[in-house]
Amino acid sequence: MNATMLAVVLDDSGLHLRRDVPRPIPRPGEVTVRVSRAGICETDVQLVRGYMGFRGVPGHEFVGVAQSGRFAGQRVVAEINNACRVCPTCRAGLPNHCPQRTVTGILNHAGGFAEEVAVPECNLHPVPDSVTDDQAVFIEPLAAAFQIPSQMPDLAGQRVFVLGDGRLGQLCAQVLALQDARLTVIGKHADKLELLRRRGLDTALRADITPDRTADVVVDCTGSATGIEDAFRWLRPRGTLVLKTTVAGQPPLSLAPIVIDELRVLGSRCGPFAPAIQALAERTVDVAPLIAARYPLSEALQAFEQVMTQPVLKVLLDVA
Amino acid sequence: MNATMLAVVLDDSGLHLRRDVPRPIPRPGEVTVRVSRAGICETDVQLVRGYMGFRGVPGHEFVGVAQSGRFAGQRVVAEINNACRVCPTCRAGLPNHCPQRTVTGILNHAGGFAEEVAVPECNLHPVPDSVTDDQAVFIEPLAAAFQIPSQMPDLAGQRVFVLGDGRLGQLCAQVLALQDARLTVIGKHADKLELLRRRGLDTALRADITPDRTADVVVDCTGSATGIEDAFRWLRPRGTLVLKTTVAGQPPLSLAPIVIDELRVLGSRCGPFAPAIQALAERTVDVAPLIAARYPLSEALQAFEQVMTQPVLKVLLDVA
Repeated sequence: MNATMLAVVLDDSGLHLRRDVPRPIPRPGEVTVRVSRAGICETDVQLVRGYMGFRGVPGHEFVGVAQSGRFAGQRVVAEINNACRVCPTCRAGLPNHCPQRTVTGILNHAGGFAEEVAVPECNLHPVPDSVTDDQAVFIEPLAAAFQIPSQMPDLAGQRVFVLGDGRLGQLCAQVLALQDARLTVIGKHADKLELLRRRGLDTALRADITPDRTADVVVDCTGSATGIEDAFRWLRPRGTLVLKTTVAGQPPLSLAPIVIDELRVLGSRCGPFAPAIQALAERTVDVAPLIAARYPLSEALQAFEQVMTQPVLKVLLDVA
Repeated sequence: MNATMLAVVLDDSGLHLRRDVPRPIPRPGEVTVRVSRAGICETDVQLVRGYMGFRGVPGHEFVGVAQSGRFAGQRVVAEINNACRVCPTCRAGLPNHCPQRTVTGILNHAGGFAEEVAVPECNLHPVPDSVTDDQAVFIEPLAAAFQIPSQMPDLAGQRVFVLGDGRLGQLCAQVLALQDARLTVIGKHADKLELLRRRGLDTALRADITPDRTADVVVDCTGSATGIEDAFRWLRPRGTLVLKTTVAGQPPLSLAPIVIDELRVLGSRCGPFAPAIQALAERTVDVAPLIAARYPLSEALQAFEQVMTQPVLKVLLDVA
């Protein structure tokens, strides 16, 4: 095997495809995963635009085959927060918030847009045979959607709006539909909303509907400051806005509605892998319609080009 | 009695003292209160600067004598949200959030910087003899401080920082000290912090201390967007930021820490009068040191001038 591999690399001059990237050498506790398939996420787009100042190999949604350790030879996915496991935050049960953590493909740790990636063995989850590689790529973002019910276990019967019909909105909507919430998904793209309507979800085009301040919960998946201000208009007094997406920079934003209406804003980031894997295995969440295109890793730059210039849903990279 | 009275009036050309203001005529359910004393609040300053577009007589912190109804002849204070009492929000137990409400001295309802004010009888609370007029002026803002433990009943033992040593910060700090929280007040004014230190509270000058991300709860009483961004730096992952003050306009603001650290932001506005009255009656909260100056109503413009140009704590208006 070569000492180098094919990988996507982000450096000061932008995004590149390189064949001379050294294969990762697993640190203590890490194992190498030979990547099979990967997905491009909005966070990857933000990284290219400068978010987090990331330099190196991006990619945090991937499935592959573990090369060593207890899962050697098995198909695995990896949680992305690489925690120290010994600090007070980790010991308090919040390793995803470890202040010393690296984040695979996002913060000080090479990611999965490469032939190989090295990740902590304790972050791996085996992928059951009933979950395909295509589906497995969605486990990480689907886990982030499952973080909402893990933070708000009492959603049954509540009036919930999901704002945004993009990649994350699609997954959050499907997960919230499993919680017996009274759910409406509001978006700007009829074709994307149609995917959800086909699954029996209630949807509305933003232009066709007026905020009525009836929502118990609004989940913002718009990734924009205007989306956040719009969210305030849907919420009843003392309602909850779940923030799933970060907005780059410091956009102008009035937080007065939070005080006046005594709203609760709840940040929500990475989530539990187990229910995401189960939902895909049991087909209670369907990700196949979200796949808009696939490219070989050698055409990763074209894949990024498509994601960054078109309102597509998920674009996959076939690695092996 | 004259058909007109002395009052402070805010109109398109600014703040005025006028002697020709018609005495308020109580609407059904309202009673007239002859105002004894009133306090100038940060919200009043914001109204003068254009917040809410208020026009008319401002003033929402006041004590006076009810002129009719079941409290006739008694000293009273008034809750400021004048609700319809019949809409779904009111019936759900949230009259302070009634979408049809007026707010005395703030929104479509004349306030108490006047000889008389007409308010809903159901909003009145009698003031016990053990509470002086000076103290009673603080009941409304002190109630707003008591809204924090009413929203967060489990503060005992929690690490709480109050950011801001001004009028609201002083009251919130004293209220939170009653909740057995592990409390530190962080401010920029040694003399104002000294008032709290004399009561046994832990305080620190902002310049002397580095945010250490240990706070379970931060209460923002700074009234500034930079205060909010600073608050994020004190909070542990999944901590709670209580927003007590609105910031005018749309300042540039990054909400990314809310998502990354899965913070909770909790808006907090008006609060329960009963514990505020009780705390003053039992002397568990001391407001006397907060009184920086007092003016007769006829010199109200000078009083506003002082509040708007100097970092003073509470300025009172003696009305009758």
